[in-house]
Amino acid sequence: MEKLFRYEDLLKFTCGIFEKIGCSEKDAAGAARTLLSADLRGIDSHGIARLPGYVRLWEAKRVNTKAIPKVIHETPSTAVVDGDAGLGLIVATFAIHTAIAKAKEVGTGWVSVQNSNHFGIAGCHALEAVRQDMIGIAMTNASALVAPTFSVERMLGTNPICVAIPAGDEPPFVADLATTTAANGKLEILQRKNELAPSGWIQDQYGNPSRDPHELKTGGALLPLGGDREHGSHKGYALGAIVDIFSAILSGANYGPWVPPFPAYVPMPENMPGKGIGHFFGAMRIDAFRPASEFKMHMDNWIRRFRNAKPANGEKQVLVPGEPERSMELERIQTGIPLWPTVVQELTSLGEKFKTPFEVQ
Amino acid sequence: MEKLFRYEDLLKFTCGIFEKIGCSEKDAAGAARTLLSADLRGIDSHGIARLPGYVRLWEAKRVNTKAIPKVIHETPSTAVVDGDAGLGLIVATFAIHTAIAKAKEVGTGWVSVQNSNHFGIAGCHALEAVRQDMIGIAMTNASALVAPTFSVERMLGTNPICVAIPAGDEPPFVADLATTTAANGKLEILQRKNELAPSGWIQDQYGNPSRDPHELKTGGALLPLGGDREHGSHKGYALGAIVDIFSAILSGANYGPWVPPFPAYVPMPENMPGKGIGHFFGAMRIDAFRPASEFKMHMDNWIRRFRNAKPANGEKQVLVPGEPERSMELERIQTGIPLWPTVVQELTSLGEKFKTPFEVQ
Repeated sequence: MEKLFRYEDLLKFTCGIFEKIGCSEKDAAGAARTLLSADLRGIDSHGIARLPGYVRLWEAKRVNTKAIPKVIHETPSTAVVDGDAGLGLIVATFAIHTAIAKAKEVGTGWVSVQNSNHFGIAGCHALEAVRQDMIGIAMTNASALVAPTFSVERMLGTNPICVAIPAGDEPPFVADLATTTAANGKLEILQRKNELAPSGWIQDQYGNPSRDPHELKTGGALLPLGGDREHGSHKGYALGAIVDIFSAILSGANYGPWVPPFPAYVPMPENMPGKGIGHFFGAMRIDAFRPASEFKMHMDNWIRRFRNAKPANGEKQVLVPGEPERSMELERIQTGIPLWPTVVQELTSLGEKFKTPFEVQ
Repeated sequence: MEKLFRYEDLLKFTCGIFEKIGCSEKDAAGAARTLLSADLRGIDSHGIARLPGYVRLWEAKRVNTKAIPKVIHETPSTAVVDGDAGLGLIVATFAIHTAIAKAKEVGTGWVSVQNSNHFGIAGCHALEAVRQDMIGIAMTNASALVAPTFSVERMLGTNPICVAIPAGDEPPFVADLATTTAANGKLEILQRKNELAPSGWIQDQYGNPSRDPHELKTGGALLPLGGDREHGSHKGYALGAIVDIFSAILSGANYGPWVPPFPAYVPMPENMPGKGIGHFFGAMRIDAFRPASEFKMHMDNWIRRFRNAKPANGEKQVLVPGEPERSMELERIQTGIPLWPTVVQELTSLGEKFKTPFEVQ
């Protein structure tokens, strides 16, 4: 059903498209790498499949491909970045590097971003800090698809949080999670397969539990991590709310139901209280707490102890956060990235439109 | 069934007991206030009901009531605190004030703590920062009761996270949550009432779903927020893991299955890799990002918009994190704190032992 494509070919194509819509060579290369990191890590919903969506945002004049992000307020350990309505893929890179630079000076750096757009996967940005022996944190708000506990109204995005932590001989710990029971991409997969969703993922427009993966088209909503009150959905809702506030109220971006939508055909919300969408980044230097070698030795010990925890009946092994994505990355670099025929078709059309052929390999 | 006690009376009694086990007047007053903040906010499992447990830790020489916490490593925005094996209730206050002082200087402050003990409720410490127009963050690890996804082994504590955020005319946003579906205190209530737990809270020693609230006594485990893999328990597990790593691997405390138990009769784990239990605190000055007045205006807007989100059928209102606890606090200050007969009996015995009568009012 799916066909495999070489990472390098997809990267070249994506980079070419970003250049065609006005990005500088450097920005196009950065945006392409960030976008495709999702495909490499197996988060297919956030990767090259979204390239036509980014282009449509540019066509609708909702994204400025010549943006120059800048720091508009700062202290030694903090900054607010104005993304100049740029591609989040590029703005986020600027922002995490601002956080890293501050951490080098005073131990940690914390950056809230306004006036940005969708930034791809959080993990990609958090891992930038890990390369500098820092803990990396990345989060973003997104347009409202999630109903808070006790509500039928969509008030929050799937608002992901990533925390990436360096280890020694072991690969880094990378927790990258939407604050919902299941991310929207999982519903798309069920729609494609014509299967029902598990209970606890979605509700209908009246707030009743539903298993129909098409429910969001008729006023339904995704549910916060936990699913319902009895299973802790108020905690998932609180986590999504924290992401929203750190990303948008600290920076001056839009929040809650006012966050701009990703699909360019969806009208913008009325009476928006801020600018664009918001992100939040953190970088904490390991040696601002203890010598990096000590920390890494204990991280390796932590990872090995958890990996060797006694498995439940029928399970093979306890997973350390980030392991499945890392295995996927190693595999896909070798064997290629699988794309569904509908995605291939969309990319082919996109290539024709911009005179950048998709399948030349 | 329960009887009401005046807050001031319980505070005076608790303070007296802490003095009798060796705390200075100031430390005893601080520890009592912190402990009872749990009773005021309705988190009865973490309040005065635990006072006999703290005393038993002292009797077992697992807590040093004359501790002097100190900073053992620092940068402008970070510190590691050695709690000197003191009461976490007191060590945590020292640590959050260290974070606040750093935030005053460089915008944010981040403090990881080793060699501590249980610190009461996270919310109490995070709210210290809110009083200074800062976002407050508090988390702690705890002895292992929670099995990671796919495991039967108890590897993590209920590892709570609190994020407290100031608002303007509205009360602060306070999300204070265990990273499990349900905290251990909820099981205790079910045991007392002889009721079954909802599905998704616990598993038996083989990893099968269970509804028996006594399951932890026979090798069962609490489940991470999400309950099972299909409902996102890998996310709850990852959040609990982040709390463990920030609290203990950054600081040099014990982590994972090696965290010392709260009940003094439970033997200490073997081959402990660190000192005591660990906490992590953060303080972020609002005006390190944007003027506090602007931030607060938007927080008020956020809070009101969420409170007015359309309720689901049969629900009254969407709750803003922290509202139920705040209502409880206002009520209990007026009407008193309800205690179960078994708790009253334990406190009476404790009072007799230390010649500090419990019921004189």
